Amino acid sequence: MTGRPTSPGTAQNLLADQREAVAAAWDLIRRAQRLLLVAHINPDGDTIGSALGLAWALRALGKECTVACAGPMPAYLGFLPGYADFRSEVSGRYDLILGIDFSSPDRMGAVYQPAVFAHTPLVNIDHHRTNTRFGTLNIVEMETASTAEIVFALLQAWGLPITPAIALCLLTGIFTDTQGFRTPSTTPQSLGVAIQLLEAGASLPTLVEAVYNRKSPQTLRLWGQALSDFRSFPGPAGNVVWASVTQDMLRRNNVAEDEVQGLVSFLRGTVGTAVAVLFVESPDGKVKVEFRSAPAVDVSGIAFRLGGGGHRNAAGCTLPGPLAAVEERVLAAVRQELEK
Amino acid sequence: MTGRPTSPGTAQNLLADQREAVAAAWDLIRRAQRLLLVAHINPDGDTIGSALGLAWALRALGKECTVACAGPMPAYLGFLPGYADFRSEVSGRYDLILGIDFSSPDRMGAVYQPAVFAHTPLVNIDHHRTNTRFGTLNIVEMETASTAEIVFALLQAWGLPITPAIALCLLTGIFTDTQGFRTPSTTPQSLGVAIQLLEAGASLPTLVEAVYNRKSPQTLRLWGQALSDFRSFPGPAGNVVWASVTQDMLRRNNVAEDEVQGLVSFLRGTVGTAVAVLFVESPDGKVKVEFRSAPAVDVSGIAFRLGGGGHRNAAGCTLPGPLAAVEERVLAAVRQELEK
Repeated sequence: MTGRPTSPGTAQNLLADQREAVAAAWDLIRRAQRLLLVAHINPDGDTIGSALGLAWALRALGKECTVACAGPMPAYLGFLPGYADFRSEVSGRYDLILGIDFSSPDRMGAVYQPAVFAHTPLVNIDHHRTNTRFGTLNIVEMETASTAEIVFALLQAWGLPITPAIALCLLTGIFTDTQGFRTPSTTPQSLGVAIQLLEAGASLPTLVEAVYNRKSPQTLRLWGQALSDFRSFPGPAGNVVWASVTQDMLRRNNVAEDEVQGLVSFLRGTVGTAVAVLFVESPDGKVKVEFRSAPAVDVSGIAFRLGGGGHRNAAGCTLPGPLAAVEERVLAAVRQELEK
Repeated sequence: MTGRPTSPGTAQNLLADQREAVAAAWDLIRRAQRLLLVAHINPDGDTIGSALGLAWALRALGKECTVACAGPMPAYLGFLPGYADFRSEVSGRYDLILGIDFSSPDRMGAVYQPAVFAHTPLVNIDHHRTNTRFGTLNIVEMETASTAEIVFALLQAWGLPITPAIALCLLTGIFTDTQGFRTPSTTPQSLGVAIQLLEAGASLPTLVEAVYNRKSPQTLRLWGQALSDFRSFPGPAGNVVWASVTQDMLRRNNVAEDEVQGLVSFLRGTVGTAVAVLFVESPDGKVKVEFRSAPAVDVSGIAFRLGGGGHRNAAGCTLPGPLAAVEERVLAAVRQELEK
């Protein structure tokens, strides 16, 4: 712990209540040589960006860092330095596991091997409200918009320099988890950390181009078809709007499954919408369900009860098909939740 | 001038080179009682938000402020306090005119009456590169992402308090002109000012809901149709992607013309796109043309030569129809520009 002063507008208050945990985590890291950093299944920009940002900072200290994610890795994060290093399986022993951006151990998927890791200390670094505090140490800040902000505060607290590569990884975490500073969870602190990451060399145009401006022409057509054909029903807090992307639509347009990223937020953007739901059929017949909601409506509970997770206004789950049955089951759950 | 210190991360350096103009403008304001604040034709969130933010700050000093805009006023800004006060025509005399967010006097449209205003001092507050310095005083900061940031710096320099209403107006200016902090023009300063506006009481969820999450279901269908039917041709710096929204499409879907706001940015978001162009047919037969470009491509020159204006990566113009002729003319101009 360097205890060096942080500049105003930073994450200075972020870990104020957790000084002991922050110091204890540093102690574990200091003594470890082989570290495993784990991102969650169905990874997003925050888990991948935060894990990479932390890995680069620790590698600069001479630590051996393995980044792992049970996958599937989304192509739109391919611009992040170190993206290609993620492994979907790990072997061997580690001195320390760092769990990045998830609320329970099952979110590590096949990466976590209980028999091998039973005695390996694990630091749980997360911002989800549903966090079960499963770590040896838990650094959980539920009021923070992204785990990347917590990682930034940790690097500051530990006195580790923020290179341009680290800054880009962490800014991607903040930017994606706040949907580009648009979610109600976005705080002045989120913007304050973003400023410091820009000043540390992260390029906002690089990030925006990579994350937002990468739809293929075929994807535009697919979006066009899905938007022309969305459906809705009224609820007490506003409309429930939903659309489905079938394997047939994806194949016909030659579009990869993760290209629909963003479509559900777009549906949510219709006036009077309380909840938007997007159903995406996977090649294996499972259906990925994404929820987005108006600020006043909480969808994290629905997703959690259906075996998924997420945040108040953005959550998701994956269910066995067929599509029609999933639509019926999920929409009934949404209706029930809204009528509570 | 109070000269009070500004806090770090603010617009402290923004007007550093213009201390005299800032002081002289304050002198003009101090001596004026009846002020006319003019927003530009085809107004956007920056001109309307900046004009309103400044008007509220000056009204708090007891000044009579008239806000004017030759229109048409976009419905999506209706949430801004004072939106309904905008007049499309003015009469009588004013002690001072404040021109907000435009580069030349013709952008005031019918609001500016040369005969009446010939001897009225005019303060030109703007951030466009094409600014002709047409004011009695010119406070022009071309490196700034939005005029709202300049207004914020002026209020700070003049020691005027920022109420929650003013903060919301100015944050709307920054947020819309940076497309939600996504344009390459976005700087740490833009985010720094945004932080202070949030801390002054602006609500980001209010703004995002009002500006982005207000599409009607019919609008979604219209977007779906336009996206399913976009066209493109390759150019040396990337693809030119374009789509047209006809009066027939608008009428059939019962959608207002300004509901297509955002569609051109969406087209621009396809991978490999250098320039996106959207053509929107007006009821009077004129065609509104919107340009968006990749960071490396400048479309302000094309728009300027066609009688419009704007920024490097976001510009527009309005041309007499018919639509097919406008498409041909504009696409030829784009092709020529890219082949330079």
